[in-house]
This record gives sequence, C-alpha cells and structure tokens, in this order.
Amino acid sequence: MRILLTNDDGIMAAGLVAMYRQLIKHGTVDVVAPESVQSATGHGITISTPLLTQRVTVEGAFTGTAVAGRPADCVKLAVTQLMDQAPDLVVSGINAGANVGINVLYSGTVAAATEAAFLGLPSVAVSLYLRPEVPTNFAWAAEIAMQVIEQIRQAGLRGGQAISINLPALPAGSKPAGIRIVRQCTRPWTDTYDRRKDPKGRDYFWNTSLFTLDNAEPDSDVSSLREGYITITPLQFDLTDHQLLAKWQSRPWAL
Amino acid sequence: MRILLTNDDGIMAAGLVAMYRQLIKHGTVDVVAPESVQSATGHGITISTPLLTQRVTVEGAFTGTAVAGRPADCVKLAVTQLMDQAPDLVVSGINAGANVGINVLYSGTVAAATEAAFLGLPSVAVSLYLRPEVPTNFAWAAEIAMQVIEQIRQAGLRGGQAISINLPALPAGSKPAGIRIVRQCTRPWTDTYDRRKDPKGRDYFWNTSLFTLDNAEPDSDVSSLREGYITITPLQFDLTDHQLLAKWQSRPWAL
Repeated sequence: MRILLTNDDGIMAAGLVAMYRQLIKHGTVDVVAPESVQSATGHGITISTPLLTQRVTVEGAFTGTAVAGRPADCVKLAVTQLMDQAPDLVVSGINAGANVGINVLYSGTVAAATEAAFLGLPSVAVSLYLRPEVPTNFAWAAEIAMQVIEQIRQAGLRGGQAISINLPALPAGSKPAGIRIVRQCTRPWTDTYDRRKDPKGRDYFWNTSLFTLDNAEPDSDVSSLREGYITITPLQFDLTDHQLLAKWQSRPWAL
Repeated sequence: MRILLTNDDGIMAAGLVAMYRQLIKHGTVDVVAPESVQSATGHGITISTPLLTQRVTVEGAFTGTAVAGRPADCVKLAVTQLMDQAPDLVVSGINAGANVGINVLYSGTVAAATEAAFLGLPSVAVSLYLRPEVPTNFAWAAEIAMQVIEQIRQAGLRGGQAISINLPALPAGSKPAGIRIVRQCTRPWTDTYDRRKDPKGRDYFWNTSLFTLDNAEPDSDVSSLREGYITITPLQFDLTDHQLLAKWQSRPWAL
C-alpha cells in the first residue's frame, strides 16, 4: 500500500511522526506536509504566491517534503507533482487537538483529507483530543488510530471518501470506551476575545475562545468524544442545503 | 435594517464598495473587512496571533474597520466585539470571481457567510464571475445583486442560513438569463502547477490551475452560471456523509 501522510501542525510535529511509525508497517509512506504550523487555516489554498518546498529529515523517522503552504496545498502538490503514482490512502494527522463539531470547517487537518477526496482518493483525518490532566502520548494514540484505520479500510473505504477520526484523551496503555460512528455536531461555540490597545491607541484582539465539549447534540461527534469514545465521522463536500433548495425551487424568481 | 458587510478581497475592494452603495439604501451598514486580500483562505480563523484593527475611510463611501485577519475573523469580531447589537443581515462580497463547485470550500467570501450562520444570523455571499472579454462593472453587478438579496429576504431568509449568490459576467446595463436555485457541483477541478528551481536549486511551484466552468454536473451552480444565469445556492455546514454514516452504523466496530 502506498500512503501519503500530511497534517496541519507542520512536518516536524510529534503527531505526524508517531503516525508515520505506524503507517510504515503497512506500506510505503511519502510525507508531504506544511513547513510551519497551519492550525485553523481551514480549506485555504495558495494561488497568488509560489509554493516553496524543501526536503526535510526527521532523525530516526523519515525524509519528506516540507511545503511553505496550507495542508490542502500539500495534498494537491504531492498527488499532481511529487509522487510517481497516486497514493492508495491519504492520512492527515495526528492533529494535536480534537476536530469535532463546527471545528471541522476550521480544521486544516480535515481540509487535507477533503482535498484528497476532491482528487478521488480515499482519506482519513486523525485528531487527538488534548486535556491538560492527561499527558499527551502520540505513540499510543497512533497505535490506536492504526487499528481504527484498518477497520475503516475493511469497511470498504473508497476513493473520494474522507473520514474524520477523533481519539479521546488517552493515558498511554489505556483503552477508549469504544468506537462510535457519529455525525458532526452543528451547535456553535462561544467566541470570546481579549480586547487591548496597542502603543498607538488602536484596538487589537486576542481570540480567547475555549473550545469545550459542552452543549453538544446528544448523537454527535462532540458528545461521544466527551464520553471517552473514538468517533468516526464520514464526511462529504456538497455544502448545499438540499431541504431549502427544494423549497426555494418551487418559488417563482424573477428580475 | 442593520447590515454587516464584509468580503475576502479586502476593505478597499471595488466589489465591496459597490455593494455598500446599494445596501446603504436599505438600512445602516457596518463595514468590517480584511485589511488585505484573503482570496482562497477558506474558513481559516486566527487563533495564535492577535487581530490588529484600524479604522479606514473609503472616500465618498464609508468609514469601516479593517482587520488584519481572515473573513471569518471579521464576522466573529464584528458580531461579538464591534457592533452594539447583532445585525439583521450579513453580506459578504461582491467577490471578484465566481464561487461555484468545490471552490465554495476554498472561498473566504462564502466562509464569512457560513461563519455568520454559525452565529445564528441570516447571511448572503455574493460573487461575480469574471470573464476577460466582459468589462467588470461592480456598480451594475451590485444593482442586480441587491434585487436578488431582496427576493431572498422575501422568500423568508432565517437566522443560521447562508445563501451563496453567483452573478454571471454582465456588461453594464445587460440582464442575466434569469435566476436559478441550484446545488453545488462536486466535480473536481484539474490542478496544474508550473515547477521551477530557485537560485539555490530547490523546487518551487506556481499554481497555474484555470478554474473553467467546463465539465459540470448539469443541474448544478457551475452549469447554470455558464449558461448566463444568476445562481442561488442555499448552504449548510453539516459535513457528515449521512448515507455512509447510516451504512457504517450498522457494522460492528471494536478495538
């Protein structure tokens, strides 16, 4: 199996290295990932500036290509320019932080998987919920993630499908409560800002929002992750509101 | 009516100024828009650096707030920090370029409208298809867009709904073929890059993709825009693939 590995935390990120060490047991792995941290860059792409690349070696792991761009750029570039043949699987992660609820739309990790789906490839995004009271252990998370990816492949993951996996905060060696196939929560977060004055008296703002898992729809990714489950959410990229579409198609519209 | 106006081309963009001149006939308009061009930044937000702001006057039009951030940041900041009360309508655009098909996911213009929907507000994104052979006239496009927005409001636009409007390339004074309510096309674009060497011998890449309107699903936004229609696409932000979700929920999953 030929695997493309990317992420949004940058090519040196511990989560990516841990995922690499699992994936390499299952095939060849090409790493093409952002040069720098690209958290919350959503599905941005680079169209007005050139994409600089360089070969980067992570000691004891791999030599890959660092791209001065977005996660989605990495997937486009890897598939159309850098790899000799299309990968059999695209993996994005492991992200340092959960990507559930509307965060799915902000997430560069998920955007990389969605970009792979645009290109007709099967893909998974893997994210790890971080909690201050649980020491982060990406090696253990990657071991669990690999088992989940294997099951997803057995379920018949096809080209053009992007699957988002979220892992609960896991002390090393511990097992999660189980696996749940759940939809994306659509409830809003509460946005908060810390307002300050710069030395010239102009306002500036720090985003201080705490993305908690409270206030979730009960059958959603957010609530299952909060209960300690691994969540699997199959994604699609048709943003049409088909219900409202049908309703409005029956109305007369004219200029 | 209290209106928030933003975009992804920056606060000085001709498309935004033209839209302002129409909207101001219908209520008060607060302009909070990116300081610089944010095309193709998708639904990125700024969480690790502060959001600098400054008051900017566009002569003969408005004084608004320029935000050194993404379109979605502008909406969050305007609604939670800058406006005394929530707007009755959020308008994003007019974007210089169409936002149809999978471009909807790359689009900062659409992300601003979706962010407003997250916050429970009614919103519209307006984009103008640019063709080299048709001189761009944002004033005329805004006049047409305003008529479409009025009809959308009459149709009963509610809080939490984001509507994407695309206008065909229009010579000033000309009428489009009509209005169509259509879904987002999900066919891929063809990605092309121009590969070069920097003076140190490292590879870099320019994205040279031409986003044409060819190869579209017949009942979609892309094909209707190509035929000269105004397209209206109601959007939603649940990315779950509900069909695959139901299928996989009936399978056994275990660690």
